[in-house]
Amino acid sequence: MRPLNIAILGCGTVGGGVAKILTEQKELLSKRAGREINLKVIAELNPPAAISRFNLDKKYFAGGGDTVSREDASKNIQNILEAEDIDVVVETMGGKGNFVHDTCLGVLQHGKNLVTANKALLAERGADIFKEAEDKKLQLGYEAAVCGAIPIIKGIKECFTGDIINSVCGIFNGTSNYILTQMQNKGLDFSEALKLAQKEGYAEADPTLDINGGDASHKLILLIKLAFGMEVTMDQLSITGIQNITKNDMDFAREINSSIKLICMARRENNQIFAEVRPMAVKNDNTLSSVNYAVNAVRLDNKYSDTHFFIGKGAGSSETAMSIVSDIVFIARHGDVETYNEKNNLVLGDSKKIAFPYLVSFKTKNLPGTTGLIATEIGKQGINIETVSHNRFSGETADFSVETESCEFDKIEKAIAEIKKINNDLLLEDPKILPILY
Amino acid sequence: MRPLNIAILGCGTVGGGVAKILTEQKELLSKRAGREINLKVIAELNPPAAISRFNLDKKYFAGGGDTVSREDASKNIQNILEAEDIDVVVETMGGKGNFVHDTCLGVLQHGKNLVTANKALLAERGADIFKEAEDKKLQLGYEAAVCGAIPIIKGIKECFTGDIINSVCGIFNGTSNYILTQMQNKGLDFSEALKLAQKEGYAEADPTLDINGGDASHKLILLIKLAFGMEVTMDQLSITGIQNITKNDMDFAREINSSIKLICMARRENNQIFAEVRPMAVKNDNTLSSVNYAVNAVRLDNKYSDTHFFIGKGAGSSETAMSIVSDIVFIARHGDVETYNEKNNLVLGDSKKIAFPYLVSFKTKNLPGTTGLIATEIGKQGINIETVSHNRFSGETADFSVETESCEFDKIEKAIAEIKKINNDLLLEDPKILPILY
Repeated sequence: MRPLNIAILGCGTVGGGVAKILTEQKELLSKRAGREINLKVIAELNPPAAISRFNLDKKYFAGGGDTVSREDASKNIQNILEAEDIDVVVETMGGKGNFVHDTCLGVLQHGKNLVTANKALLAERGADIFKEAEDKKLQLGYEAAVCGAIPIIKGIKECFTGDIINSVCGIFNGTSNYILTQMQNKGLDFSEALKLAQKEGYAEADPTLDINGGDASHKLILLIKLAFGMEVTMDQLSITGIQNITKNDMDFAREINSSIKLICMARRENNQIFAEVRPMAVKNDNTLSSVNYAVNAVRLDNKYSDTHFFIGKGAGSSETAMSIVSDIVFIARHGDVETYNEKNNLVLGDSKKIAFPYLVSFKTKNLPGTTGLIATEIGKQGINIETVSHNRFSGETADFSVETESCEFDKIEKAIAEIKKINNDLLLEDPKILPILY
Repeated sequence: MRPLNIAILGCGTVGGGVAKILTEQKELLSKRAGREINLKVIAELNPPAAISRFNLDKKYFAGGGDTVSREDASKNIQNILEAEDIDVVVETMGGKGNFVHDTCLGVLQHGKNLVTANKALLAERGADIFKEAEDKKLQLGYEAAVCGAIPIIKGIKECFTGDIINSVCGIFNGTSNYILTQMQNKGLDFSEALKLAQKEGYAEADPTLDINGGDASHKLILLIKLAFGMEVTMDQLSITGIQNITKNDMDFAREINSSIKLICMARRENNQIFAEVRPMAVKNDNTLSSVNYAVNAVRLDNKYSDTHFFIGKGAGSSETAMSIVSDIVFIARHGDVETYNEKNNLVLGDSKKIAFPYLVSFKTKNLPGTTGLIATEIGKQGINIETVSHNRFSGETADFSVETESCEFDKIEKAIAEIKKINNDLLLEDPKILPILY
C-alpha cells in the first residue's frame, strides 16, 4: 500500500509535538498502520524556533527551514491543499478566524482528510466542516479537540457502538480544575490561585476562555453532537464559569464532604437534552471529586454498560499530539470506512428544570433568627433541608450554607425571592447556588 | 453491503445479554455498522430458560426453541461452524475444556470471525487461537474478556496507536474488590465479607478463581500480550490473592491513608517486563483507591500521553454483552482491516526486584523493646522507615506495622530473617508485606 503522506499546518506546541512523534516513531507507527506514515511537509511562519524546540530536521519545512512571510506561508498552505500526494492535513494553527476556518474547509474540499485539535473552530464554526467531511466521505479526526489525550471521540465512535449513551458529563477544562484544586488544597482565593496557575504555566496571560467555562463548553458541544446527534450553539447553552467561587464556597463544600468542580453535563431524557456548564459541589464518593489539578475526566452513563470514567491529561504538547497521531494511524488503517454520524431530532430542555440537591450559601446581616427565617422559606417551597452549615460570624455579617434535597432550580430562586420580600436588607449579596453531584 | 450474520454459542448470562441487545437495537446497530447486523442462530442446551429470561423469540434457537440433548447441541454447533452464511460466531459457553477450545479454534479454521468473553481460555490456551486468527486474517474480538464493559482492548488497539505503553495496572477483578471494599467500609473479616458477596450475587459458590488472583491474572496476561507483545503463562506470573487479608491489615492500611486493593501490574523497563498480581495498600490520592465494590479500573502510563484511567463495570450480563456487541459492530465496520499484533522480544523480570515502599505488619509477643529491635533490623538493611503504626496490644500479643520508604522486596525479607535469628520466638506469625502504591 502506498505511504500515507501528512502535512502539518502550524508547528507550535501541538503541531511540533505531532512532528516529533511522527519522526521519532515512524517505523512503529507505520507497522501499526499497515503502511508507511510519512511526514511530508510542515507549513510554519517561524521554522527556526520550531526546529530548535522540537529537534526537527529543516527538510520538513516548506521554504527550507527559514522564516517565511505571512504571504509566503499562505502560499505554502495553498500548495499543500492542492498537492496531489498529501492524504492528511493536520491543522494546528488554532484560532477560529476566517483564515483557519477556510483552510480547514479547503482541506476537505480538496479531497484530503483533516485532523485538528481546534475545539473553538469546530464547536462554533464547524457545521460546514463536518458537513463537507460527511459529503465527501472523508475523515475528520478531532480526538485532540476534546479533553486532549483522553480517547473519548474514538471511545464513543468505535468502542461503545453496542450501547446508547444517556448522559455525558465531566471535568473538561484543566486550567479551571487546577485553580479550583489549589483553592481547595491551599485555601487560596480565586485571584491568588489564578496567579499561581499562570506562574506554573497552567493558565494563559488572558485566561478568560478557561475560567468562564467557554473552553469547556466547546468540548461539551462537540460531545453532544457526537453522543446525541444534536447541534447546540454556545448561546443556547447555560454556561457559568468559576470566577465567582470564593474561599467560603470551598469551605462550605468541604463541610458537606465535597469539592467544587467545573462540571460539564448533558443528559438525554426522552427527546430532550438537558445541558449545562457550571461549578458544582461534587461529593467525595464520586470519582470526579478526586480528579485534581490539570487533569480532565469524562463520565458516561450508558443504557447497557452503566457508568464509565475516562481520566487523563487534557492538554500538553505531547499529550495532545498523541491524540492527533492516533487519529492519523486510525485514518491509515480505517480511512476508507465511512463515519457514522448520529443524528437525532432532539430539543434542548430548560436546564433550570434539572432536579439537583443544592448547596446554597448566604451572606447575611448578623441577626438572631436569620437561619430560621431562611430555612422556613426554603421549606415553604416544598424543599427538604439536608443540613445547615456552621455559621461563620465576622462582625456585622454572617456566612452559612444550606444543603437541600433534590429539587428544581426555580424553587430555590423562588425561596430567595420570598426571603428578600420579607426583609430586603437581610441578604448582603445574592446567595451562591451550587448543584450537588453525588 | 450484505448483512453480517451472527451465531451465538451458549445463551446464559452473557450470551443472552448479547442476543437481547442484538434484537432490541437491530436498527440502530445496523445504521452504526453501515450494514445489517443480523442475529441468525443461537445454539443452547436449554432454550426455554433463555427465552423466558431474556424475552427472546424461539425462532433464533437451533432446534426451534425446545431443550436439546448434548449430542444435538454439538451437532448444532458443528452446523454453525460449517454454515456458509455465518460471518461472526460469539462464544459465550465459558470454560477452558477441549470442547470450548476446539470450537473456538474451529470457528476460525472455518473462516469465521470469533468474538468471546472467555478470558480463561484465551489466557491459558489461547496461543493457537490467536495464531489462527492472525494467519487467516480474521478478527478475534475479546473486548469483553478483559474488564467487562471497559473498552481497554480497542482502547489500546485503536486509540493509543500514537503512543507507547510503559505500564498497565489496575483492579481487574470485581468480586475481590467488592470483598475488600466491604471489609474496609464495614470492618468485616474476610470470611464475613466473602459470605456477603455470595449473598449479594457478587461471588460464586466456588469463589476460588476470584479471590486467589487467578481471574485477574487471566486479564493481565491478555493485556501484557496486547500492550507489550509478550506471551506470559500463569505459572510464570507472581500471583497472590486476597484470602489472607485481615481486619488488622485493613486498619494498618487506613492508618497510612490507603486502602487495600488487589492490584494487577505490568511495567516495561528496557527489555524486561515486571509483572505481578497481589494486594497492595493504595494511597488515597491514587484514583485506584476510590474504585470500590464490583468496579474495575485500568491505569495506563504512556510515553507521550502520561497517565490514563478507565473505570467501569467489570462484569454483569448487559455490561459484558455490550462489549461483545461493540466488537460485532467493529467487525462489521472494520473487519477487512488486518489487526496489528505487537510482538517484542522481552523477558520477564524478577518481580522481587521492583522497588516499592512497603507496609509490613507484625504480630509479636507483647514485650518491651520489640518495636526498637524490628526497626533497627530494618534500618540495618539500608531501608528508611516512614512511620510506625499505633501498637494494638491484646494480652500476650502485639500488632503493629511499619511503613518503609522504597526498597527491593528481598531487603525486607532479609530484615525479617535477621529478626528471626535474634529471637526466633518473637514473631508469632510471618509478617504480612504489602507494597504501597502512590
